[in-house]
Amino acid sequence: MTITIALDAMGGDHGPRVTVSAALSFLAAQQEARIALVGQPGIIEDELRRLGVRPDERLEVVPATEVVRMDEPPAQALRTKRDSSMRVALTLLRDGRADACVSAGNTGALMAVAHFVLKTLPGIDRPAIVTALPTLKGHVHLLDLGANVECTAEHLRQFAVMGAIVATAVDGRERPSVGLLNVGVEDIKGNEVVKAAAQLLARSELNYIGYVEGDGIYAGGADVIVCDGFVGNIALKTSEGLARMIRAFLKEEFGRGALTRLAGLVARPVLKAFARRVDPKRYNGATLVGLNGVVVKSHGSADAVALRNALEVALREVRHNIPDRIRQEMEPPPQRGLA
Amino acid sequence: MTITIALDAMGGDHGPRVTVSAALSFLAAQQEARIALVGQPGIIEDELRRLGVRPDERLEVVPATEVVRMDEPPAQALRTKRDSSMRVALTLLRDGRADACVSAGNTGALMAVAHFVLKTLPGIDRPAIVTALPTLKGHVHLLDLGANVECTAEHLRQFAVMGAIVATAVDGRERPSVGLLNVGVEDIKGNEVVKAAAQLLARSELNYIGYVEGDGIYAGGADVIVCDGFVGNIALKTSEGLARMIRAFLKEEFGRGALTRLAGLVARPVLKAFARRVDPKRYNGATLVGLNGVVVKSHGSADAVALRNALEVALREVRHNIPDRIRQEMEPPPQRGLA
Repeated sequence: MTITIALDAMGGDHGPRVTVSAALSFLAAQQEARIALVGQPGIIEDELRRLGVRPDERLEVVPATEVVRMDEPPAQALRTKRDSSMRVALTLLRDGRADACVSAGNTGALMAVAHFVLKTLPGIDRPAIVTALPTLKGHVHLLDLGANVECTAEHLRQFAVMGAIVATAVDGRERPSVGLLNVGVEDIKGNEVVKAAAQLLARSELNYIGYVEGDGIYAGGADVIVCDGFVGNIALKTSEGLARMIRAFLKEEFGRGALTRLAGLVARPVLKAFARRVDPKRYNGATLVGLNGVVVKSHGSADAVALRNALEVALREVRHNIPDRIRQEMEPPPQRGLA
Repeated sequence: MTITIALDAMGGDHGPRVTVSAALSFLAAQQEARIALVGQPGIIEDELRRLGVRPDERLEVVPATEVVRMDEPPAQALRTKRDSSMRVALTLLRDGRADACVSAGNTGALMAVAHFVLKTLPGIDRPAIVTALPTLKGHVHLLDLGANVECTAEHLRQFAVMGAIVATAVDGRERPSVGLLNVGVEDIKGNEVVKAAAQLLARSELNYIGYVEGDGIYAGGADVIVCDGFVGNIALKTSEGLARMIRAFLKEEFGRGALTRLAGLVARPVLKAFARRVDPKRYNGATLVGLNGVVVKSHGSADAVALRNALEVALREVRHNIPDRIRQEMEPPPQRGLA
């Protein structure tokens, strides 16, 4: 079965210079995939020409005249840019002309436009952003990462249901463990929303394991960890910042003098193997879950390697049929025997 | 001038086995310091005997019959344990028999008991927990780290004032830059409390530099970063968890085989220099700021090296006279010319 991904070719800090080459390398590896490059045809075609490639049945250019800026307010993007590459890509998905949409554009705008164009699945009040992060034991699905800065307990419960479905689909976990991010593990810890969410989760059919503290994210004790979008975004970005600092410190220490540089040379294969394990590029591609369709957000600063990973995430989500699984889970059970 | 620190000798995961030897190594290095070891005299004296030391004019044992458990609810610790080592240590500080109090005990209980025994400074509604974290350019003072899981904009403003005073006192920064932790840097980002706090800070006399994202903590662009205690606690513990995972991955990669172990041997001095720069022990010791007195919280799992660092933090805070500086800053300006 051919899977078509609508790629917002104008999105991200680098636009077509990155999106087009990511698309080509993805298509070379995934023979059953197609890509619709959505954006300003002149710029996209220049880039294709530069790379010596022509559109074909697996690589289509779909025109969109406008571009949502990285710092544009979501409401403005939604109201005024009806022909943006982001919106046209999402419309292809809504109309069944694509199976997924990938964008490295402005997160808030992508969220707002995707919500407007695709709508949420029945039973889901708010879409959430979820991604897999490495842990000591494998990886964990963390959500919400910034779609909803203020959440109710019921929102957190819905995020938990969606996270568990993602973990089941992607990792084949039958009853994935679900933790709730909190400032302590005792019952009395946390704010009112978190405490109320804990009660909802304890009563649910999920494999709820209780509160998880910040350091529990990377310890690997939970398959899914749920939090509001403010907290999730801070946890994710703090991690990115710390990883960047650690890389810089390592580089500095190995660069101090002739002897340390020699040591670095000897240790290079090991350091490279280490770096691969925590490479943020490998973890690029967060899903906007809870919508009628697969939408994947790439980091704005993604290079072609990282963006290609986001395309792989989208392909996987389509194959696992995540939106349909959520729809089935949230559907009220059929009424029986009452008629 | 002799500075006396009341040390909750029973606090932390290891109690006197760690607190007593931390006290001794601290006293050996700081000739003008005294320590009051507060707790169950039998256990403390056994430990002193084991280490071949007797109390003297610089090392006093102050009896307290009860111990606050690490998982004890703060309200219970406050109500029922009037003779706990934690409370007696704080009372020594209140009564002027000590200049600071250090505890590795239960954070919530320490907060509650310290608040009750010492009271907050005039103009401060809530004490906050602040610590220095390493950054690419030096370090940053982050607060609140978990004392207040729900905050108003005014609380955040008070945290900013206190953080700036700490940065000025400790680092000698004349107008320390203050950032507000948020999920984006644009005006429209964040929840209502953060947006309202931004307005208060923009109108204040602080050197307010605007929103800082999670990755900005370690980038070193701000001297002080302010957030509510829920978010701060998650940011701090997430960092601890990630650092632990990175250490484990490095160790695993260097331990894979004979060649990688050899590379590890060659790189060891460099890796050690690196590890020192991010060693959490060097950053152990968070201050409960906003109280009538210097109170420092050590990590519960601290070993003697880490706990000694918390004692050093307390000594520094006493020397810098942080509570008095906050009192002066928060005092209403004298009324003039109206009489």
